[in-house]
Amino acid sequence: MAGYQAINFRQKLDLIAEQWQPRVVAEMNDYQFKLVRLEGDFVWHDHKDTDETFIVLEGELRIDFRDGAVIVSAGEMFVVPRGIEHKPCAEREVKMLLVEPRGVPNTGDAGGARTAPNDVWI
Amino acid sequence: MAGYQAINFRQKLDLIAEQWQPRVVAEMNDYQFKLVRLEGDFVWHDHKDTDETFIVLEGELRIDFRDGAVIVSAGEMFVVPRGIEHKPCAEREVKMLLVEPRGVPNTGDAGGARTAPNDVWI
Repeated sequence: MAGYQAINFRQKLDLIAEQWQPRVVAEMNDYQFKLVRLEGDFVWHDHKDTDETFIVLEGELRIDFRDGAVIVSAGEMFVVPRGIEHKPCAEREVKMLLVEPRGVPNTGDAGGARTAPNDVWI
Repeated sequence: MAGYQAINFRQKLDLIAEQWQPRVVAEMNDYQFKLVRLEGDFVWHDHKDTDETFIVLEGELRIDFRDGAVIVSAGEMFVVPRGIEHKPCAEREVKMLLVEPRGVPNTGDAGGARTAPNDVWI
């Protein structure tokens, strides 16, 4: 078989036209790896049933919590625990990899206009 | 709370003295993120019950399969499907992030001298 092919983050990110639209690039068991470009402020939300992992590839992400914040820069990761309200913010564009179970919506339980289509592969 | 802290891959890798000894840096639900430095050839093995994710941070990893191989370079990832025999190889040192369920041994079902202690945090 000659079908083994690595997933190149930069090449995949170049195919993503819109910010805040996560695109699935791989699955491991029932988890998905999603690339996303983002800039500006997102909405407050949480995920009641799952932790959520942010791995920053380019730029500097701030994640606000109700009682603090964390800066996640390129080459760093952070796991947001389940049920904790958070709001990602990026003064300049950030490119990152999300890891979370299949089927988790980007806005969690908050819903609203910023909710992106789920399970879209690139 | 002032306890939010990102995980810096380079800082953590600098704390890992030995090659082929994965160190846990984070958990997401029942999955773990492990950093590892490796060089040379590993042993053939598989993981019957789980896929395994390789994200290369520095260097170039080759993963041999019984019917092919894949090169995974810095900025790339690859998911080895469950039950597929594989052998990681690195001509020069590779630094990478593994993602897999808690409790998965590095040598899978093969065991042997290369089996590293599991669930060691750094």
